Amino acid sequence: MKPLGPIPAGYTAIGGELAIGGRTASDLVAEAGETPLFVYSRDLLRARVAALREAMPARLKIHFAIKANPYAPILEEMKGLIDGFDVASAGELARVRAAGIAASLVSFAGPGKRDGELEAAITEGCTINLESAGEARRALAIGERLGLRPRLAIRVNPSFELRGSGMKMGGGAKQFGIDEARVPALAREVIAAGAEWCGLHIFTGSQALDAEAIIETQANVLALADRLTGEIGAPLPKLNMGGGFGIPYFNGDAPLDIAAVGAALAERFADLPEALAETELCIELGRYLAGEAGVYLTRIVDRKESHGQTFLITDGGLHHQLAASGNFGTVVRRNYPLAIATRFDAAPEEEASVVGCLCTPLDRLADQAHLPRAEVGDLVAVFCAGAYGATASPADFLGHGPAREMLV
Amino acid sequence: MKPLGPIPAGYTAIGGELAIGGRTASDLVAEAGETPLFVYSRDLLRARVAALREAMPARLKIHFAIKANPYAPILEEMKGLIDGFDVASAGELARVRAAGIAASLVSFAGPGKRDGELEAAITEGCTINLESAGEARRALAIGERLGLRPRLAIRVNPSFELRGSGMKMGGGAKQFGIDEARVPALAREVIAAGAEWCGLHIFTGSQALDAEAIIETQANVLALADRLTGEIGAPLPKLNMGGGFGIPYFNGDAPLDIAAVGAALAERFADLPEALAETELCIELGRYLAGEAGVYLTRIVDRKESHGQTFLITDGGLHHQLAASGNFGTVVRRNYPLAIATRFDAAPEEEASVVGCLCTPLDRLADQAHLPRAEVGDLVAVFCAGAYGATASPADFLGHGPAREMLV
Repeated sequence: MKPLGPIPAGYTAIGGELAIGGRTASDLVAEAGETPLFVYSRDLLRARVAALREAMPARLKIHFAIKANPYAPILEEMKGLIDGFDVASAGELARVRAAGIAASLVSFAGPGKRDGELEAAITEGCTINLESAGEARRALAIGERLGLRPRLAIRVNPSFELRGSGMKMGGGAKQFGIDEARVPALAREVIAAGAEWCGLHIFTGSQALDAEAIIETQANVLALADRLTGEIGAPLPKLNMGGGFGIPYFNGDAPLDIAAVGAALAERFADLPEALAETELCIELGRYLAGEAGVYLTRIVDRKESHGQTFLITDGGLHHQLAASGNFGTVVRRNYPLAIATRFDAAPEEEASVVGCLCTPLDRLADQAHLPRAEVGDLVAVFCAGAYGATASPADFLGHGPAREMLV
Repeated sequence: MKPLGPIPAGYTAIGGELAIGGRTASDLVAEAGETPLFVYSRDLLRARVAALREAMPARLKIHFAIKANPYAPILEEMKGLIDGFDVASAGELARVRAAGIAASLVSFAGPGKRDGELEAAITEGCTINLESAGEARRALAIGERLGLRPRLAIRVNPSFELRGSGMKMGGGAKQFGIDEARVPALAREVIAAGAEWCGLHIFTGSQALDAEAIIETQANVLALADRLTGEIGAPLPKLNMGGGFGIPYFNGDAPLDIAAVGAALAERFADLPEALAETELCIELGRYLAGEAGVYLTRIVDRKESHGQTFLITDGGLHHQLAASGNFGTVVRRNYPLAIATRFDAAPEEEASVVGCLCTPLDRLADQAHLPRAEVGDLVAVFCAGAYGATASPADFLGHGPAREMLV
């Protein structure tokens, strides 16, 4: 028997079934027409943002990194909830613009921006987080050619990292951002060339659950921004402090203590160095905002025994849930939170593995889990499916096609 | 410095550039209009099939598992080269039919077939490789409802596995197929119900480079088929012996010795048990047929140093090359074969990491490789991209969209 991850708060049963937004899983699937289906909860998105606002200093702006979930209705919902949007390609920029989000609220980071992407960003007027000196020069040249003043910030590769983060994006040699030591000269070059100087972006890692690690990193980020601003010799309009707020996926994970993070940040904000006194300060979150608000629903199409083990075979799989299958950025596969949605309040009574329909042994949604007895036709729910689910999975693999999505 | 995998045979330089099908990488990209681009070589596909035909006994039929590469022009090319097609979903079935391939040449395996997929397979007349007793009963019921006689084979979960294979699909508890011991009774049930009995499918693993392991497994497969046929008590029309033929991806990998495999199989075929004397025998290959015939071309958009390391940043990445990035079915990341396509005959002179354009540290195509010095604008080639590339990667991730594909 292998443990399942913890089911996020906010999911209840109605008539014994998992309910999302006050409606049963069966009802939602009936409306969508078919499984597999991603269901995102508007209430949970709102509650998450409200809790963050409550915990964080009022001055801190909250941005959404749409790479976590670029589903159009989510972007439209977020438009009314948060302060800015971070995109990682011209494709994502087009998505936020299509959702009616002003380009002035958008920043664009990513290590391999093409000329066409820089041109789109400059034409639209979003902020470009520069990842290299070469990119800075390309952006300036394109601005000049277009007769437009580019809005440029610099992404810093800090010398420190976010301790305990799932993905380190700072500390040592990295493809992201510009090494600390080279930032001041490049910033002065960008300002002298007449670009609109938009400030710094310091991203150190993601998916951390340890409040102390985030508190330490945020202090380091503020200190680094202060020092760099002094070396640049120009006011710092904006500072993107990065993200890193994690969510619990696995057995034993506890939610991040955002009250502690917010309290520490409030103390820092009450005592900011002169250089940051007027700076607009933000954090950039993707997974933390959307991850726990989403559920992936898939139907059991077969139940079989093999050599004494029970397999529940679903019509979904890693083509929509690559990370849950253990094949994306994880070394040791562990079970995500998962439940039999149509028997949500039933007690576990058997050990079963839940697998996808793909013809590969990689396609496993739960390994030897303790579950209520489920039959063909039952719905399975995989939780934490609101971020890095639909678009971070190989939807075309084996020809089953994409899942449906709905926001309720 | 970390070694690169071995570049497959058949790639040459023209004017210093990598050539595919007699044309330079630059020329191919110019025709396609843009990078990233998958280029598949018709000559290499044909040469691979010809070499297999030469090595294997004439009696052995060769099937293509289209999950490896369902690109329509590849299916059309394969139609004239090989003897059968294996699909893993109704979507793949639709693809082979659209390529003008007769349903009688198609078999459909996969552990999570929906009723709609079974109906499509029965209506079209392809062979269904049954994965469970439940699926057998569903298929029979659907055949009866449609007034059609389903063509049914049984996929066996053998008690042995393919030693040294990249993915084990036999041996112990599995979601694939039906445990050996349960096969005879189910086969008799299917025959008694009036289905067209199509035989057995025994798949034990994939991506093996050790000829001895494949020879041993093929002997086990033939012995198992003989024994099961005796227990079933009906002639065995067809036996799909599985695949498992691997290709070299990593430094130190040597090509599979197909001459040895073919010679051993010819000996077995010369001395087949009575029960298999009239049986149609086939192997099912995907990666082995298409993998080395494909190259992924991506352009360098930035070159940067960070803490003394050089990064070549491309406009491609793991959204098209998930396996090459080390994030699909591998525990320890190793470098695939990769080259600077526009400096294909230049000597290596620096250590550089080649990364994709995605804003994630997972997006790495070559780690600390020894390469000719490359600049912005140069093309990078990732080899072994003809199988499990385009469709086995999260093309929608971060909004860059799919790569182009061409067969030349």
